[in-house]
Amino acid sequence: MQRYFLPYQTLTTQPIQLPKEQAHHLLTVLRGKIGTSLEIVLADHCVYQASVNAMDPVPTVQIDKKLAVNAELPVRVIVACGLPKTKEKPELIVKKGTELGANHFIFFESERSVSHWDQKKITKKLARLAKIIEGAAEQSHRNSLPTLEYLPNLQAVTDQPADVKLVAWEESAKQGETGALVKALQSLQPGQTILALFGPEGGLTETEVTTLKQAGYLPAGLGPRILRAETAPLYFLATVSYQLELLNAGKSR
Amino acid sequence: MQRYFLPYQTLTTQPIQLPKEQAHHLLTVLRGKIGTSLEIVLADHCVYQASVNAMDPVPTVQIDKKLAVNAELPVRVIVACGLPKTKEKPELIVKKGTELGANHFIFFESERSVSHWDQKKITKKLARLAKIIEGAAEQSHRNSLPTLEYLPNLQAVTDQPADVKLVAWEESAKQGETGALVKALQSLQPGQTILALFGPEGGLTETEVTTLKQAGYLPAGLGPRILRAETAPLYFLATVSYQLELLNAGKSR
Repeated sequence: MQRYFLPYQTLTTQPIQLPKEQAHHLLTVLRGKIGTSLEIVLADHCVYQASVNAMDPVPTVQIDKKLAVNAELPVRVIVACGLPKTKEKPELIVKKGTELGANHFIFFESERSVSHWDQKKITKKLARLAKIIEGAAEQSHRNSLPTLEYLPNLQAVTDQPADVKLVAWEESAKQGETGALVKALQSLQPGQTILALFGPEGGLTETEVTTLKQAGYLPAGLGPRILRAETAPLYFLATVSYQLELLNAGKSR
Repeated sequence: MQRYFLPYQTLTTQPIQLPKEQAHHLLTVLRGKIGTSLEIVLADHCVYQASVNAMDPVPTVQIDKKLAVNAELPVRVIVACGLPKTKEKPELIVKKGTELGANHFIFFESERSVSHWDQKKITKKLARLAKIIEGAAEQSHRNSLPTLEYLPNLQAVTDQPADVKLVAWEESAKQGETGALVKALQSLQPGQTILALFGPEGGLTETEVTTLKQAGYLPAGLGPRILRAETAPLYFLATVSYQLELLNAGKSR
């Protein structure tokens, strides 16, 4: 069933007017009419079964009941990526990353980032990525719309608070390190935040890794194969889900 | 360092002539010359350090030494996908799947597959995907070149032998099942084969799932979010690596 994220803070018994974009989607894609069923996610991150109760002059929906569904990871996951070279890679990262449960994306200019978002373009680029995130969140039945931001440099990333901070580091994997990711994921408690940082295509520099270690980031290998800049975050997110949603669930049974 | 997969069966002390495509790549992309270092993977799945020892009339390389590197998963992984709608999705699956360690890809026509590869196009389509696999295997430093095939229907897939067979099933996840994937991965012994089957965009039909269950396939959920047809195999492959290369490595320490 189609799901829309609506920015309303509180549940109201009054019918809710669909914002312009969702109204357009309802009309042109769903060919909705009075009685069409929808799932609505309000700002409380809860999912409500709703139905269209008026189409004219603008579509409005009425909440029928709250649904007991939750597709969110038990921890908050921040994915920070050194700006990749092409336009397609950030798009793939946010799209697949949203499906896989990320809560916040950071793109930052790292030393080896070839591309650069100039000040004028940042708002437009972020808006485009936010649109992709919204579509992926609707499709994957998320309860929460991931957010994103652009940070000018690594320092701005290291200032971000998180309970556990990882840096995906190829050299770590080359040295046969296999325990850091496992240890980090196993240490997480529900409600905590984990931030994982990934380099751009050329990787992070030694200086950047040193800075990150000093800021409390743990270098972690993601297995023996060399993953592309856009694949590493997806590997990481899948392992968060496996450890926290599948393995840990088994332990508590 | 650039890695080339060469189809030669045995290691020879004689210089090896590069096949046409690799010779072209060496000349135009690497701008190679006598002395250029390469990594060569022979049909024994071992990696050899090699160097160009002649350029004229065709480039030849000389093996310098065998390298003790292995980036293969400890089990053989077969990924079978119901044919997705677009051309891009199989490409993404084989590219990212190769990076993530898959050994063999099967595309098959399932009941809800919208697209169809007609007999005349199959060879060409497989050749294109094989090219993408080769590039991804070189880049991710695999020791083994994944293979692929097209099968006309589900029956042809269920005839494939494997030690453990899974079917990714959304309904399984919806029912709150979290243990099947974990149990399957934890049961695997080095050298065994696991086959995981994924539906196309519209999912598998009840009939298909019943057929698969009767053929020994275990329905497994991949967490509470709805993953797209091309994302589910990548989630699965990342969890194979996490369980077998990171978690199990920790246990044996």
